[in-house]
Amino acid sequence: MKIGEFLKGSQQRLVTCPPDATLEAAAKLLHEHRIGAMPVCQMATRIVGILSERDLVRTFATQASNLRDMQVRDVMTTRVISCGADDTMQAAQDLMRRNHFRHLPVVEAGRVVGMLSIRDTLALRLRESEDEINVLRDVVVAVRQR
Amino acid sequence: MKIGEFLKGSQQRLVTCPPDATLEAAAKLLHEHRIGAMPVCQMATRIVGILSERDLVRTFATQASNLRDMQVRDVMTTRVISCGADDTMQAAQDLMRRNHFRHLPVVEAGRVVGMLSIRDTLALRLRESEDEINVLRDVVVAVRQR
Repeated sequence: MKIGEFLKGSQQRLVTCPPDATLEAAAKLLHEHRIGAMPVCQMATRIVGILSERDLVRTFATQASNLRDMQVRDVMTTRVISCGADDTMQAAQDLMRRNHFRHLPVVEAGRVVGMLSIRDTLALRLRESEDEINVLRDVVVAVRQR
Repeated sequence: MKIGEFLKGSQQRLVTCPPDATLEAAAKLLHEHRIGAMPVCQMATRIVGILSERDLVRTFATQASNLRDMQVRDVMTTRVISCGADDTMQAAQDLMRRNHFRHLPVVEAGRVVGMLSIRDTLALRLRESEDEINVLRDVVVAVRQR
C-alpha cells in the first residue's frame, strides 16, 4: 500500500510544533494529542527536526535542572529522514527498522503532510499477511477439491 | 508461541524501579536501558505499578513545576494488568490492544519476570504469518504440480 493511501484512510490529524516552543509546551502537545512524536516545523510545515517522548525523557534524565529553560530546538533530533506519499508502507517500515526510528515524517514538495509510526506499518503489514493467508488457504482447498 | 518461550529467546534484561524513586532517577533508568516502560516493584519483584515514558511526559505537561519533587508512586499507572509465561503472545497482544496499553508485565507466582511491548507481539505475529504464507505457497505449488 502507498503511504498516501494509508494516510487518507487513517484520518490522522497532523500535529507540529515550532523550534522555539518550550519543552513544556511541546510536552503538552504530545500529551493532549496522545502521540509519541511530532515534526518540528518552521512556517508551519517546513520540517527542521522531530521531537519525541524519548527526547523529553532523555533531557529530563540528563539535564533535569535546565528542563524548564530549554526550547524544542535544543533537544530535537535534527537528522531528519523522511519518506514520500508515493513510497510504499513496506519501504517506510524498512527505513524505520534500519535507522532504529519509531516515527517517520511524510514529506511532499518540502512540506510535512503526515507522520508514520512503526506500529502503523507493522499492523498494516500483519493485516495484509493475514489476508494473503486466507486467500492461499482458499486456493489450497479449491485445488484439492478438483 | 508461549510468552515464556519468547522471553527466553529475547534475552531481555528486566529493569524495575522502586515506588519511592524520584522521577529523575526513573527517567535515567528508562533512558539508559532504552526502554519505554518498566514495572514498579516493592522488594525487587512485587509489582505495584508501571511507569512509562508517557507517564513522565504527562507529568511534565501538567505539573512541570513539581517534577523534581515527585516520586514514581505519584505518577505511575497503578491499574496493573498482567499476563503469565504460559499465556500465548497472541493473548498478550489482544490484551494490550483491548486496553490500549503499549506494555504488559509478565508475572509468575506474584513476581515480575519480564515485560512485553505491543511491538514485540506484532513483530512476532508478522514473522509467524510470513512463515505460514511461505508454507501455503509451497503447498499450492506442490498440489498444482501433481
